[in-house]
Amino acid sequence: MAQRIDIDDPADPRLADFRDLKRADRRPDRPGGKGLVIAEGTVVVRRMIASPYPMRALLGVARRYHELADDLAHLDVPFFVADAEVMAAAVGFHLNRGVLATADRAPQPDAAGLLAAARSVAVLEGVGDHENLGSIFRNAAALGVDGVLLAAGCADPLYRRSVRVSMGHVLAVPFATLPWLDDGVDLLHANGFRIAALTPRADAVPLGSAGLAAGKTAILLGSEGPGLTDAAIAAADLAVRIPMSRDVDSLNVATAAAIAFASLA
Amino acid sequence: MAQRIDIDDPADPRLADFRDLKRADRRPDRPGGKGLVIAEGTVVVRRMIASPYPMRALLGVARRYHELADDLAHLDVPFFVADAEVMAAAVGFHLNRGVLATADRAPQPDAAGLLAAARSVAVLEGVGDHENLGSIFRNAAALGVDGVLLAAGCADPLYRRSVRVSMGHVLAVPFATLPWLDDGVDLLHANGFRIAALTPRADAVPLGSAGLAAGKTAILLGSEGPGLTDAAIAAADLAVRIPMSRDVDSLNVATAAAIAFASLA
Repeated sequence: MAQRIDIDDPADPRLADFRDLKRADRRPDRPGGKGLVIAEGTVVVRRMIASPYPMRALLGVARRYHELADDLAHLDVPFFVADAEVMAAAVGFHLNRGVLATADRAPQPDAAGLLAAARSVAVLEGVGDHENLGSIFRNAAALGVDGVLLAAGCADPLYRRSVRVSMGHVLAVPFATLPWLDDGVDLLHANGFRIAALTPRADAVPLGSAGLAAGKTAILLGSEGPGLTDAAIAAADLAVRIPMSRDVDSLNVATAAAIAFASLA
Repeated sequence: MAQRIDIDDPADPRLADFRDLKRADRRPDRPGGKGLVIAEGTVVVRRMIASPYPMRALLGVARRYHELADDLAHLDVPFFVADAEVMAAAVGFHLNRGVLATADRAPQPDAAGLLAAARSVAVLEGVGDHENLGSIFRNAAALGVDGVLLAAGCADPLYRRSVRVSMGHVLAVPFATLPWLDDGVDLLHANGFRIAALTPRADAVPLGSAGLAAGKTAILLGSEGPGLTDAAIAAADLAVRIPMSRDVDSLNVATAAAIAFASLA
């Protein structure tokens, strides 16, 4: 059972994991920070507890401590209970969700290990927006995509905002970095994957005609603005487009990903 | 051609449309405010200029004025040019996008008029989140849905944040309020629409088997948390679900909408 520790002083050194979460120079989830993974709110905290990430501590108001009692039963970490004002003073802003948890990063599979166990994956190139990245993980989890491969230019999926937008699913969907356009293409092919690049290009195959549900499929997605590089599209086995109305340039990348993921079912 | 007027004083009364955009008691886009429609950034401003909404004025830095020159050619409204500091002092925050425009609200079609001209519509119940609402309009525009019907509990789609998240497409996709569950159902049926309620319920028909591409379809969507009311689902002609992985409760409502809209093509 997590050990309840009541805290009255926001400067208590035991709250170090949770201090000044927005101060860029001290952000525990940033490179140069402690590299911690941070969960906010009961839904995401529950997913963190259920994940393979090694929990460090929780901080919440008493009501959240009681709400989470069942989830805390097999945890051997401190749960710091504080009132909303003490929490706000420690983390640096008022926390609507009333509970936070921290975990250390867990070892991720390498791309080869991930691909050996997967039937469908998303390959991301240049997805640098944490909210889009988090949404892609949420959509992958909901729609049964087995893993996410991060090629060049992607943001850190374990950044606080990404974890939150993913609803914590980034802690459940395996991900790995991929040396895309070097041996990444070969690795996908060696594991039996067909690579489908999602692009608004007019000469791409309409999604409904691409037959992506058959076999192992890797959906290749680019950043929302410029989209995939020409080299990335050329390296794919086929280019696929979501049929769109005239005059509308494109969907949000996470939304486009969801439509493509749904077509794999 | 829009008339260029250089402004040095943030208190200039000609900037009244743009003043204190975040001050809740003075928000021009809120009920009780002036009810103005506000566009931010060149992409959305261009869509406002191309829309049927009657333009009132623009405010931007000189660079944006020049970028928009072609779009301004047939406008007979003032373009206030100011530097970033004067703009920030007038609107109340620093504006990354460098340009704003205001328009009056345009008369919307009534539900009957909208349905008579549509082949596919979204019917929204209780979508009170402006970002989700804006995303639904963006997705409707991209995926060829002809209109949006707002039943009880929906937010104002012309609220500033909704306009921004929609990428301005809320200014192009017709919408109307619908007395849903009163004569709304009859009105949809009288216009030949089949009503498909989107729900995660296990007994709903999987989306891929629902045959929504045939005929006129109304996709009924509920709020992200509680989802559709039982009464709303009972009033629909069929309940449809997006097949989801175990343990994942649901997709974001705008993402679910996009997957359903894509299935209409």
